Amino acid sequence: MVCGPSNPGPKKYVYLFEEGDWRNKKLFGGKGASLIQMTQLGLPVPPGFTITTEACRDFYAPRREELDKLVKELERQPPPEVRDKIIAKIWEIINSLDLPDGLMDQVREYMHKIEEKTGKKFGDIENPLLVSVRSGAAVSMPGMMDTVLNLGLNDTSVQGLAKQTNNEWFAYDAYRRFLQMFGKIVLSINEELFTEKWEEIKKKYNAKEDPEVPVEGLKEAVEEFKKIIEKEAGGFPQDPWKQLEMAIKAVFRSWMNPRAIFYRLMNNITPDIADCTAVNIVTMVFGNMGWDSGTGVAFSRDPATGENKLYGEFLPNAQGEDVVAGIRTPMNIEEFKKKFPELYDQLYGAAKLLEWLNKDVQDVEFTVERGKLYLLQTRNAKMTPLARVKTAVEMATKPALDKEYVEKLISKKYLPEKEGKLIAEKPTITREEAVLKVKPEHVLQLLYPRIDPKAKATPVAKGLPASPGAVSGQVVFDPDRAVEWAREGKKVILVRIETKPDDVHGFYAAVGILTSRGGMTSHAAVVARAIGKPSVVGAEDIVIDYSKRIFRVRGKDIEVKEGDWITIDGNTGYVYIGKVPTIEPEIIPELDTLMKWADEFRRLGVRANADIPEDAKLARKFGAEGIGLLRIERMFRKPERLEVLRKVILAENVEDRKKALEELVPMIRQDFKEMLEVMDGLPVVIRLIDPPLHEFLPAPEELLQEIYEKKMKGAPKEEIEKLEWLYKRVKALKEANPMMGHRGVRVGVTYPEIYYALAKAMVEAAAELIKEGKNPKLEIMVPQVAEAKEIVFVKKHAIEPALEDVAKEYGYEFIVKDKPGHYAYKTSDGREYEILVGTMIETVRACLTADEIAKHVAFFSFGTNDLTQATFSFSRDDAENKFLPQYIELEILPANPFQTLDTKGVGKLVEMAVKAAKKVNPDLEVGICGEHGGDPKSIEFFHKAGLDYVSASPFRVMIARLAAAQANLKEKK
Amino acid sequence: MVCGPSNPGPKKYVYLFEEGDWRNKKLFGGKGASLIQMTQLGLPVPPGFTITTEACRDFYAPRREELDKLVKELERQPPPEVRDKIIAKIWEIINSLDLPDGLMDQVREYMHKIEEKTGKKFGDIENPLLVSVRSGAAVSMPGMMDTVLNLGLNDTSVQGLAKQTNNEWFAYDAYRRFLQMFGKIVLSINEELFTEKWEEIKKKYNAKEDPEVPVEGLKEAVEEFKKIIEKEAGGFPQDPWKQLEMAIKAVFRSWMNPRAIFYRLMNNITPDIADCTAVNIVTMVFGNMGWDSGTGVAFSRDPATGENKLYGEFLPNAQGEDVVAGIRTPMNIEEFKKKFPELYDQLYGAAKLLEWLNKDVQDVEFTVERGKLYLLQTRNAKMTPLARVKTAVEMATKPALDKEYVEKLISKKYLPEKEGKLIAEKPTITREEAVLKVKPEHVLQLLYPRIDPKAKATPVAKGLPASPGAVSGQVVFDPDRAVEWAREGKKVILVRIETKPDDVHGFYAAVGILTSRGGMTSHAAVVARAIGKPSVVGAEDIVIDYSKRIFRVRGKDIEVKEGDWITIDGNTGYVYIGKVPTIEPEIIPELDTLMKWADEFRRLGVRANADIPEDAKLARKFGAEGIGLLRIERMFRKPERLEVLRKVILAENVEDRKKALEELVPMIRQDFKEMLEVMDGLPVVIRLIDPPLHEFLPAPEELLQEIYEKKMKGAPKEEIEKLEWLYKRVKALKEANPMMGHRGVRVGVTYPEIYYALAKAMVEAAAELIKEGKNPKLEIMVPQVAEAKEIVFVKKHAIEPALEDVAKEYGYEFIVKDKPGHYAYKTSDGREYEILVGTMIETVRACLTADEIAKHVAFFSFGTNDLTQATFSFSRDDAENKFLPQYIELEILPANPFQTLDTKGVGKLVEMAVKAAKKVNPDLEVGICGEHGGDPKSIEFFHKAGLDYVSASPFRVMIARLAAAQANLKEKK
Repeated sequence: MVCGPSNPGPKKYVYLFEEGDWRNKKLFGGKGASLIQMTQLGLPVPPGFTITTEACRDFYAPRREELDKLVKELERQPPPEVRDKIIAKIWEIINSLDLPDGLMDQVREYMHKIEEKTGKKFGDIENPLLVSVRSGAAVSMPGMMDTVLNLGLNDTSVQGLAKQTNNEWFAYDAYRRFLQMFGKIVLSINEELFTEKWEEIKKKYNAKEDPEVPVEGLKEAVEEFKKIIEKEAGGFPQDPWKQLEMAIKAVFRSWMNPRAIFYRLMNNITPDIADCTAVNIVTMVFGNMGWDSGTGVAFSRDPATGENKLYGEFLPNAQGEDVVAGIRTPMNIEEFKKKFPELYDQLYGAAKLLEWLNKDVQDVEFTVERGKLYLLQTRNAKMTPLARVKTAVEMATKPALDKEYVEKLISKKYLPEKEGKLIAEKPTITREEAVLKVKPEHVLQLLYPRIDPKAKATPVAKGLPASPGAVSGQVVFDPDRAVEWAREGKKVILVRIETKPDDVHGFYAAVGILTSRGGMTSHAAVVARAIGKPSVVGAEDIVIDYSKRIFRVRGKDIEVKEGDWITIDGNTGYVYIGKVPTIEPEIIPELDTLMKWADEFRRLGVRANADIPEDAKLARKFGAEGIGLLRIERMFRKPERLEVLRKVILAENVEDRKKALEELVPMIRQDFKEMLEVMDGLPVVIRLIDPPLHEFLPAPEELLQEIYEKKMKGAPKEEIEKLEWLYKRVKALKEANPMMGHRGVRVGVTYPEIYYALAKAMVEAAAELIKEGKNPKLEIMVPQVAEAKEIVFVKKHAIEPALEDVAKEYGYEFIVKDKPGHYAYKTSDGREYEILVGTMIETVRACLTADEIAKHVAFFSFGTNDLTQATFSFSRDDAENKFLPQYIELEILPANPFQTLDTKGVGKLVEMAVKAAKKVNPDLEVGICGEHGGDPKSIEFFHKAGLDYVSASPFRVMIARLAAAQANLKEKK
Repeated sequence: MVCGPSNPGPKKYVYLFEEGDWRNKKLFGGKGASLIQMTQLGLPVPPGFTITTEACRDFYAPRREELDKLVKELERQPPPEVRDKIIAKIWEIINSLDLPDGLMDQVREYMHKIEEKTGKKFGDIENPLLVSVRSGAAVSMPGMMDTVLNLGLNDTSVQGLAKQTNNEWFAYDAYRRFLQMFGKIVLSINEELFTEKWEEIKKKYNAKEDPEVPVEGLKEAVEEFKKIIEKEAGGFPQDPWKQLEMAIKAVFRSWMNPRAIFYRLMNNITPDIADCTAVNIVTMVFGNMGWDSGTGVAFSRDPATGENKLYGEFLPNAQGEDVVAGIRTPMNIEEFKKKFPELYDQLYGAAKLLEWLNKDVQDVEFTVERGKLYLLQTRNAKMTPLARVKTAVEMATKPALDKEYVEKLISKKYLPEKEGKLIAEKPTITREEAVLKVKPEHVLQLLYPRIDPKAKATPVAKGLPASPGAVSGQVVFDPDRAVEWAREGKKVILVRIETKPDDVHGFYAAVGILTSRGGMTSHAAVVARAIGKPSVVGAEDIVIDYSKRIFRVRGKDIEVKEGDWITIDGNTGYVYIGKVPTIEPEIIPELDTLMKWADEFRRLGVRANADIPEDAKLARKFGAEGIGLLRIERMFRKPERLEVLRKVILAENVEDRKKALEELVPMIRQDFKEMLEVMDGLPVVIRLIDPPLHEFLPAPEELLQEIYEKKMKGAPKEEIEKLEWLYKRVKALKEANPMMGHRGVRVGVTYPEIYYALAKAMVEAAAELIKEGKNPKLEIMVPQVAEAKEIVFVKKHAIEPALEDVAKEYGYEFIVKDKPGHYAYKTSDGREYEILVGTMIETVRACLTADEIAKHVAFFSFGTNDLTQATFSFSRDDAENKFLPQYIELEILPANPFQTLDTKGVGKLVEMAVKAAKKVNPDLEVGICGEHGGDPKSIEFFHKAGLDYVSASPFRVMIARLAAAQANLKEKK
């Protein structure tokens, strides 16, 4: 996690903003690179330079190995007392480190260059140079590392600052703030010592707010603060060079402060992504020099709606920290435009130029000092999913600014002529780039309920967006009560400090889950995602008191009792008090456009898993090119059907079973017909019955309970005897491990009459539609195959007889095609309709003998859920409830393998199978219908593995389309 | 199953015994080859020739494809009405076939050669040549195909025969028999027509037995039989050439008669093993020409005891069919020797010569015609396991005959000089050949109880020996009653026509299983073998009447009622009435010798799976080189231990769990110590706890029942509440699929304290023995690993801490060796004891990531039971009870994959894993401890896959040693 061994020889550690290469973010950090870029574009940036991340790595090098080990130990989440010891050890080590040889010489040389540029002098009594010392790693780690402002102030230069600004109050206020900041950050003094002292002084001068303290008070504070530093750290360095050296060290050290370490662990920021921080030394500019000054942030497009206009806010007469403190309400960009029209144009021009060059929406920090604009940073903007999609599409279709305005900006030199013309004429990015810009998960968030943007609700806390969707519910603090209340028809949100396996019944009862502790891979997060409940986790400001059955919000005067309504937004991680209106999603036109492009760029087909016509309709709307998996099982949920199905299962001989099946078939045939009709012209894969049969029977324990209850009530004997018979049958059918028991094709082999009847119902549905002039594309899928002979058997004894019998029934010619698993019906007027027979590949052995199986089928569909279970020997139900969350927390597994395909194990089997199968049957159609079909990472893998399509749940169809396109585009790169 | 396309051009279909190559059994069949061999050795064989199997293949060629299809359909076991139609179709086809072109020309040419040799003439009135027409395929199919004797008799030649033999009665009796045989076999006439007519004639002449019928009666029978043939088949061919042609056809056809087809299906005789039958035309010799004639069979050694002496029997004045009919009791070989000392020597010489050349005990058929010996066939003898072992070892250690006797035989020309000398001086076979001769399963039979040979009991029926062991029990006809009676302490044998999955509870209750229907792979056979119960299946003479609760024995006046005692012998397939004494096995010295040789020849190590000291002692006695698997679980069967283990499992926090573990450890430590002590100096692999924890808890249903029963009885409230708490905990721990649930290393990861405590108990046991001067070789095994990080975690958090703590406790130096998973304790006097840590490879993912896992462990042990479950997605319990027997019957699977390794699937994983693992860790020790470790076929596979050892149940250790040697010897060939 820390820094590598240093190269021998003298090194260039320091670069003026004029000389670095802004593309090298790893060397200069994100902030440094942006300052370099803006400087080299001629945009108004205060003079300064960057100390490279290499310098920081060399700083750590002498003890790096030890530090890496300690971080590894932290990674294992030791108990608190151990953790504290490790952290103390880390502090001890990093406090002993020195800056690498020669670094301060280079810094001095470059500081002199800045002095030359600005005409100011470091520590000067007349015109002192003040600088900020800012951290900046290759990736943004907001708030995690340290920054020191106004460095260079001392008892001498404060006078210079007063002269310069003609404002003694301003100068001493800056000095006071600098002392406090330096004491806290560089010298690690407890900040409270300063704030307490400051409050004393404010009291003494009867000041309610800071600005009311007179200059004397500020001077007194300066003296008192120096005393504190004297006492706690042996004195404040009046030498600005000493200050600078200490501040650079402090920033380097901040890379290893515990919150930064944990942030990196949590966000998986490994050394190959960002290794140590750069340091940026920038001439101070002041936004708090009066009402013609101020500080703000501007986005080149609206990061919430995606609208193509300058967006942002500006706080006049303020420094960055004032914005954060939220003392005054900043003005919006429209007001800013009215007040500073020139600055607005200059800012807009700069933002659009940066957008054009960086090919993304920009988030620009700026300060205005006495009417002059300075840009302090630019970066790619974080946006809402909506804005992300909208901007990506607009940037790929329209010029970023209209001609007229561009001409105006060029004329004012706010845009260079060449780039300006291009900006007015051409789209900023290509369609391929647009498709690659949108994260597939963003699309999902556009499809889930979200907080109504018109609601103007203010969140009271923020956690991690663990599972998408916004939902309101009544707070409950324990899972048993959640179940109880849910039974009463209440919508409840389960609120826990953290959750454990014993709580899972509460998850099912709740509409959402909120925890105050834990990361994206905590138990709560994993389970919530697994069962699709909106969830916010690790909302640390939520302080729960189980004994009182309340929670408070840290820093706010809010108390929420059990039963009170709250709203959580799993898309953003926000928590709201009360019922906040949510809106159902609608597909914006830009999303539609994006998806069309994605369709052009992808090779993988995308189908949907859908069991009922409503889902199929939804899937078709979301662009599914067929049904990749229709599970018959869901059709038996209706009580009258379940009744008949139970007769099938409980039948003690073939005749009874056949009779019950005859009753069952017409019931489901209509469903099949509807599904095929909704997807008319597109393939529909219907799976023969898969789950263990006893899943459709009452649980033996329930029956036993019923029997005894009846006995105790003295119910009639026959009634009890009937129940006892049922109990006996159910017990006889019960299996030790139903997941690996008498199910799937094994039922088809032992009771071919069941597979025959089900196949017949499907084929009749298709035959009926053919008669009606429709174009059904039925694909019959056999599940759980482990041996080629199983498929041969059920084809011969169940499916082919069904095909033949229905053909006779409808007077179609039945054609057995030359290709394995291909059949067709030919109508009297010569139309031909193919019906395919294929198999689900969900046992390990099917993967290992894929070449044999491929000889007998038209298609494969990987059932990666069961395959993952078999590969790991993990029963999903048991694993997700009992040990998987802990496995992910301990990083024994990198992710839940039921969500993201385990490429090392399961993936290897998939690759082997595809390769072997396509070799013997090149026409074989190969898809995947497990849950992984909707997971972008997994989709990328399936693309590379050479599959033909993925099938995802309807809501994930768009994700899949996008991810498939991205996989293909990435591969082409 | 039938015969391939014919090659173009004229073919040689017919070979004199003098000209064929006797090694080519595929071309000449077994009988033909033996006649050829004996003829070419100069042994007395009646002149004759062989028609090749190729001729038969060409006979079938024109319709072969159709026939193969029909056989395939039969293979699928269609319902009876379908089966009958298929059989009728087969008959229709084969009756339409003609002999291949040119065959009869060649036959005629060779018949003339025989005429020349014998001076007899086919169909002659003076000195007619009579021949037998005998089938003979590459493998023996006893009684399955047809033979015609005395061919060449007609109204003319019968007179010739009478003259030749000077015995009119004899000639007409032969003619009568020939007509009946020809009618039945060649013309397919119902045999009853002949026997009824014959009975009529016997009545007419007042004859009780056949010999009492006078010549007139015989002549009358001949006329009547010809009439029957006239009526049924249009006439008897007087032309002997016509007879011959028809008989050859009939023998060819008999290859496809239903009983032959089913025999081949049942015994897996595929075309690569035997494809069509040869036909042997042999000059008739008559054993029924008086008291200086006769027929017999001789073995070159005793096939029951293995004793090295001529063994056999002889029926004077009789033909082969008389022996079968059992009219008179044959004389034993001693009597024969007394009566025919010369013939005895001649026969013994021939048998030993053939034994020497064929390197196996010979089973010789012979006939004596008027004092002259003729050999009609020789083949390798079928022997009892005892004899097989004894003869194999003796043939490899001692000369087959003593010098003196050999010299006598040489002088009499009963042995050629060269071979004779060798026979007297050298062992017949090498030790390697001896080891290859004994089937590993035979060894097993020597270890199971068998019928006391002194008992002189006569079996009443014979079925297939489905599962070894002899046992007596009371007959029950239904599984429920079996359970009931077993509960009452009775020993019962379950007798069923056939069994189905619903009967399995009866299997467990019974001491043995007998069925009247089904083959070696029928449900009953598969399940009986799976659970280790002696079983005889398919004993077709047992006629069961469920309604009367009796069985009768077909053809015998025996009725057995429910509750009567019977004895079955699963080693031989015999069924006895009453209690027949059985004897426990003892290891014969020859077995010991054989095993020593096997140990020299094998590369694979052999360990045993044993959980208790008694088993370990047995294993050591049987030659195990260590314990390959000690399952801790069995140590918890004792109630007081189970009690404490339950505390561990039910504990609601770490402290309670640790406390309970502290109680548990001393209890099992002593067991570990005993095991290590029994195996002192040999490795003992102890597996950390593996099964799902709730297996040790009461079943929730039982608890529920108890709660209600108590409630109904008005038991005290606290008692019920306690049970209710337990019920709730048990339910919370219950899993949907425990086999893939919270078990094995997953328990070690989530509750490291459990693995720590168990590891500590093992290590303490070893430490204690070290202190006592013993040499324990502990190997700690982690089960269910699916990911390398699991093993890393439990090593670090459980096993290594245990090793360190025990080292401190005993004052040993704890050494972490350079090789992964290798540790050692060093005593103060410098002795060093290695302790290894390894993993069971029983998940698919462990196989797929074996290279990663191998970096962290000293050994792998394949758990092929669980691996088979995971590869097939078959839960063994459920599969063997619900569908696996049917799978094997339908030949969807070739064998129970839990008994014989599925090389296509599971084997592929094993190979991949071994290869990948040894690449990164060449020192890795790789074994297998699943049930397959005791299965010869599987052992051969493991040998080839490069494993280091197999571990089998104690009783299978010898099998494993032998199979391992055979695998190595076969490979070297």
